[in-house]
Amino acid sequence: MNVNDAPLPGGARLAPVLRLRDGLCSNEMDWLTEEVPVALEFNGISHAVMLATPMDLEDFALGFSLSEGLLDHASDLYDCEVLACAEGLTVSMEVSSRCFARLKQRRRTLAGRTGCGICGTECLEQVLRPAPRVRPGPPIRSTAVARAMHGMRERQVLGQATGATHAAAWCGPVGEVRLVREDVGRHNALDKLIGALARAGIEAHGGFIAITSRASVEMVQKAAVAGVPLLAAVSAPTQLAAQTAHHAGMCLAGLARQGNLVVYAHPQHMVLDTKD
Amino acid sequence: MNVNDAPLPGGARLAPVLRLRDGLCSNEMDWLTEEVPVALEFNGISHAVMLATPMDLEDFALGFSLSEGLLDHASDLYDCEVLACAEGLTVSMEVSSRCFARLKQRRRTLAGRTGCGICGTECLEQVLRPAPRVRPGPPIRSTAVARAMHGMRERQVLGQATGATHAAAWCGPVGEVRLVREDVGRHNALDKLIGALARAGIEAHGGFIAITSRASVEMVQKAAVAGVPLLAAVSAPTQLAAQTAHHAGMCLAGLARQGNLVVYAHPQHMVLDTKD
Repeated sequence: MNVNDAPLPGGARLAPVLRLRDGLCSNEMDWLTEEVPVALEFNGISHAVMLATPMDLEDFALGFSLSEGLLDHASDLYDCEVLACAEGLTVSMEVSSRCFARLKQRRRTLAGRTGCGICGTECLEQVLRPAPRVRPGPPIRSTAVARAMHGMRERQVLGQATGATHAAAWCGPVGEVRLVREDVGRHNALDKLIGALARAGIEAHGGFIAITSRASVEMVQKAAVAGVPLLAAVSAPTQLAAQTAHHAGMCLAGLARQGNLVVYAHPQHMVLDTKD
Repeated sequence: MNVNDAPLPGGARLAPVLRLRDGLCSNEMDWLTEEVPVALEFNGISHAVMLATPMDLEDFALGFSLSEGLLDHASDLYDCEVLACAEGLTVSMEVSSRCFARLKQRRRTLAGRTGCGICGTECLEQVLRPAPRVRPGPPIRSTAVARAMHGMRERQVLGQATGATHAAAWCGPVGEVRLVREDVGRHNALDKLIGALARAGIEAHGGFIAITSRASVEMVQKAAVAGVPLLAAVSAPTQLAAQTAHHAGMCLAGLARQGNLVVYAHPQHMVLDTKD
């Protein structure tokens, strides 16, 4: 099979592999997720480099900027351009002078890698930003979460092809999946989703976010900044994530699989559909 | 159940949860993985803050320092002390003046979060360090990888209790698990393992490393610095991870489940046990 002839899905490349399955061995071509260094530049100043899957990078850049508090609103971003170079990709952003001044003041050398939300803090006091309080939304039924998880799985195009990406989905109140973003890093997938919502002018508070990963404290922080009243994860949260969701007033559900789930914070915002 | 009476496994805390299982709802106590900001200090200078599970932090500090090339040998670390404060934990290291001088020269503000190997690079040129060439080891049988995966699962004490941690295991040539380390972040688990090997004076090259996660490029880089000829992952690698393993001369296996696996780089270093 000629690699160049294959229909490439975004964010993946074909590579030769040797597969052992059920005791049989075969040489095959397989889709691997792309992982590329992506530099985020604000007004010409390089600010952070993350390893990310090169899809939806405008969403990523805006979502990262918002969820990390570098920009206050989508309107603080005037222009955004993705440029390729030998070493990777640069997302060059023009942002409001107010936000840029604050950014410089932070005097941080941000940088990240796969799965890393944001970096640059070098002392303990800086690492845990307090998450904002979230306005409670209408209670969400557990069946809506189950529907969302099912719908997200069906729309993980890259994840299905490669088995190596996470997804984040924004879902309406009854669990209908409205937007999905994928990335090799779970923080990146969530940032892409948050950016996509902001670019579409959608108020995240009107629905909830489902993620294919565990819920660490940064996932809760990002979701709180986005203002969603419920974060539902396929895997378990950490203790700090549960505590942060509690303080933020956010409902946090985990282990959402096959209709089951566990609620770790603010269960009053969820309606559990029991059998009786 | 009184939380204070419970036998706490290291790295986990009990928390009240609301569980929906098979249509039945119950209030329960559940183990959640601890996630704590951990600052790494070199000769009194704060250098990086990671979100990590507070177990085996001496292993973590040494492993991170080695796998990121901050220290050349375990003997460059003279002293290591874990200190608690209100905001988290500080691992205070005394290191050789040669390594410290180089560290300062890098002029990097390193920082990380869960799942983030290392940070601090602010331009694309810095982000991808070339991985060192690995000396080939004796070929490893696919049955040894299967045995290692099974043995690692059995020794994931924290993972079994919380469902929210990754593990990395160092295994002998026939797949016997010799050392396991766990953390909420997959890079951290691997760094802890690399540190534990170095502290025990074990030459990593004599075996292979198994991980419960996907294989991103940083996992391959760290394993290459540690010198293991084979990295075997439960999930899939990224394209960049496969490419990096290829250049480093390291055999990279993924999707290692139920005796099946896929080899993405240097299959000549693995013996596939087929049925015929």
